[in-house]
Amino acid sequence: MTSGHDSLRLVLASRSPQRDALLRQLGIPFRVCVSGHDETIHEDGPAATVEENARGKAAAVGARVHLAAGELVLGVDTVVVVEGETLGKAADEVEAAAYLRRLSGRTHDVYSGLCLRRAADERCGHEITEVRFREIGAGALASYLASGEWRERAGAYAIQGLGSSFIEEVRGDYFNVVGLPVRLLIDELASLGVEPLSWL
Amino acid sequence: MTSGHDSLRLVLASRSPQRDALLRQLGIPFRVCVSGHDETIHEDGPAATVEENARGKAAAVGARVHLAAGELVLGVDTVVVVEGETLGKAADEVEAAAYLRRLSGRTHDVYSGLCLRRAADERCGHEITEVRFREIGAGALASYLASGEWRERAGAYAIQGLGSSFIEEVRGDYFNVVGLPVRLLIDELASLGVEPLSWL
Repeated sequence: MTSGHDSLRLVLASRSPQRDALLRQLGIPFRVCVSGHDETIHEDGPAATVEENARGKAAAVGARVHLAAGELVLGVDTVVVVEGETLGKAADEVEAAAYLRRLSGRTHDVYSGLCLRRAADERCGHEITEVRFREIGAGALASYLASGEWRERAGAYAIQGLGSSFIEEVRGDYFNVVGLPVRLLIDELASLGVEPLSWL
Repeated sequence: MTSGHDSLRLVLASRSPQRDALLRQLGIPFRVCVSGHDETIHEDGPAATVEENARGKAAAVGARVHLAAGELVLGVDTVVVVEGETLGKAADEVEAAAYLRRLSGRTHDVYSGLCLRRAADERCGHEITEVRFREIGAGALASYLASGEWRERAGAYAIQGLGSSFIEEVRGDYFNVVGLPVRLLIDELASLGVEPLSWL
């Protein structure tokens, strides 16, 4: 993949407002192009799941858009793993309640896969962050479900929202839990010759 | 201090937009009342420093405003400790550069003190979060200084801004690094009988 002396620009293959916000926070120029790729859970485990989904999203967008010089497609996928079980997005409020009861008072892992793609060339990887929840009481659970924040979120919570009230501790890349493995992204860009903040 | 069946509302004794944003994120109703209290670094170490500053801010506001039923004053102060030295806000760009060179490639601790106050009654505590920085290259340092983001930030960086590109790992309460020890706040409120999310 070219490192390019052309200035970096990403094509974010995701409709997630959290990923959008994190790229803005980093000051990286980007445009959004939603992939339409279906997320699936792989038998080979969470690392394979998030890498394959990230790859699929990046490939779907890469096949469809014309990339300008310096542009790379970025695909990302996030799941939550608790006691060996992989949780994606909850289908409804009943499932969201079940997910949150599983996470209550326990430590879980958040896996995000990342894929950077240019033409047929791609670099993929994943990041794991440990998150410890406090015990969620019945009142807090009911309030959280009523807020609707659980929708469209892996594991049925948003760490950067009301869900912040559930968190005891994070170990690793916090932004990975929000939905973008920032440390890994910075590392991959650096390996392509794009130094941190050189895009400003 | 009363737990009160009156609905909770905080009086935030801080002009920090980050603390404002974190209270909004939690959905806690609040108003802002800037204290004018001067932050100082105590000889007794960083824990005493941030607790005393938080206490001073809360006391200054508590002495000035009339609290409605259910209202509590919230004072907070944050410093960065690296290799035994306490860093507050950098005075100028030269000091900011020196701070960031100290943090580069090392692990530091972020201390926040928190003080909840109602009349003469107060509860204070502090939280410590470990943050590991990657090596910051000369180009990234120059870009960061030019961005001006280092201003008004303990340790001369904003983890929720461009500074996110420096972070290798967080251990503990991430929000504490942004400027508000959320886990401690939730614990203190619960000990006053205010359950998580009961304020929604």
